[in-house]
Amino acid sequence: MPQAAPFVVHDRWGGGARKRSLPLSRVYALLETGPVVLLTTARDGRANVMTMSWHTMMEFEPPLVGCVVSDRNYSFALLKATKECVINIPTAKLARQVVAVGNSTGRRIDKFAAFGLTALRAARVEAPLVGECYASLECRIADARLVAKYGFFILEVVKAWIDPSVKAPATLHHAGRGTFRVAGRTLRLPSRMK
Amino acid sequence: MPQAAPFVVHDRWGGGARKRSLPLSRVYALLETGPVVLLTTARDGRANVMTMSWHTMMEFEPPLVGCVVSDRNYSFALLKATKECVINIPTAKLARQVVAVGNSTGRRIDKFAAFGLTALRAARVEAPLVGECYASLECRIADARLVAKYGFFILEVVKAWIDPSVKAPATLHHAGRGTFRVAGRTLRLPSRMK
Repeated sequence: MPQAAPFVVHDRWGGGARKRSLPLSRVYALLETGPVVLLTTARDGRANVMTMSWHTMMEFEPPLVGCVVSDRNYSFALLKATKECVINIPTAKLARQVVAVGNSTGRRIDKFAAFGLTALRAARVEAPLVGECYASLECRIADARLVAKYGFFILEVVKAWIDPSVKAPATLHHAGRGTFRVAGRTLRLPSRMK
Repeated sequence: MPQAAPFVVHDRWGGGARKRSLPLSRVYALLETGPVVLLTTARDGRANVMTMSWHTMMEFEPPLVGCVVSDRNYSFALLKATKECVINIPTAKLARQVVAVGNSTGRRIDKFAAFGLTALRAARVEAPLVGECYASLECRIADARLVAKYGFFILEVVKAWIDPSVKAPATLHHAGRGTFRVAGRTLRLPSRMK
């Protein structure tokens, strides 16, 4: 399989893609549950994707997301150079691909081709959305001052997409060494918390 | 109810407490699933507790945890002054207390007394463990350089406790405005990922 092959970008409105724009004010509710995500990056028409569990919301609006991308990851150099990425949220249906992505490196293979992931054109960044994920957040680096010491990037979400047909997504939550807890029942309690 | 009353610290080995020491190398697997946590702080024999969903692992060992504590929270000043706290992980059984803690402030009430939470003595910090939580992580501030701008504290976990009888904890994952997803089924896939 070729390393970081030129990626075919699909149009997001064709071929069964059902994503709709999501107001930025609602992004926090997607990420503060702590789902495993697929982070995509791209440079010179070549894209990569990595699995990531170390992220946190940092501000509601504009939404800021902090995340750790180790400099051992191929994505580190792409993210640092382009200052852009997309955070894509998969559900349990994608569990095998999520693990396969996490156990391989874009230095040696084109992970989109290898694992059957569809690259959809983003609106504001070059990195593609992952068509199989129910939500995608286009991001730009907002603050890189902790990158050298911790690999910690602070990203601003500049555009958000969601598949509105997914009501209670079975998100994956990594508990180490290939063990995941899947989001189960929904509890609703009266609360003044945002 | 008195504000930040002197707290009664219970001995962790008495009264049905079942916590055991957990190796620091295993802490990441508890937090990377993204559970809602209860953050405890203490100063001058008075303790507070807040609900927190904005946190991420940043290093495996020694375990580093990044988290956002807004300067609007009473806990902010306590954490900043003492440089210590405990991250406690509740399960769905504690959902009502988690919401009640998140909807009140330690400026006006003693939340331990008000919501029936038990303060257990920690080993390395003054802030108490929450006896009703299945895991507790004693922390010290490791890096405060993003506190002024983002309320972002980088904590080092210096001692970890777990109730070994809890095998697949029904952790809470906040999805905004009092809606929580509860950790459900466990998926195990072959993986080389840590």
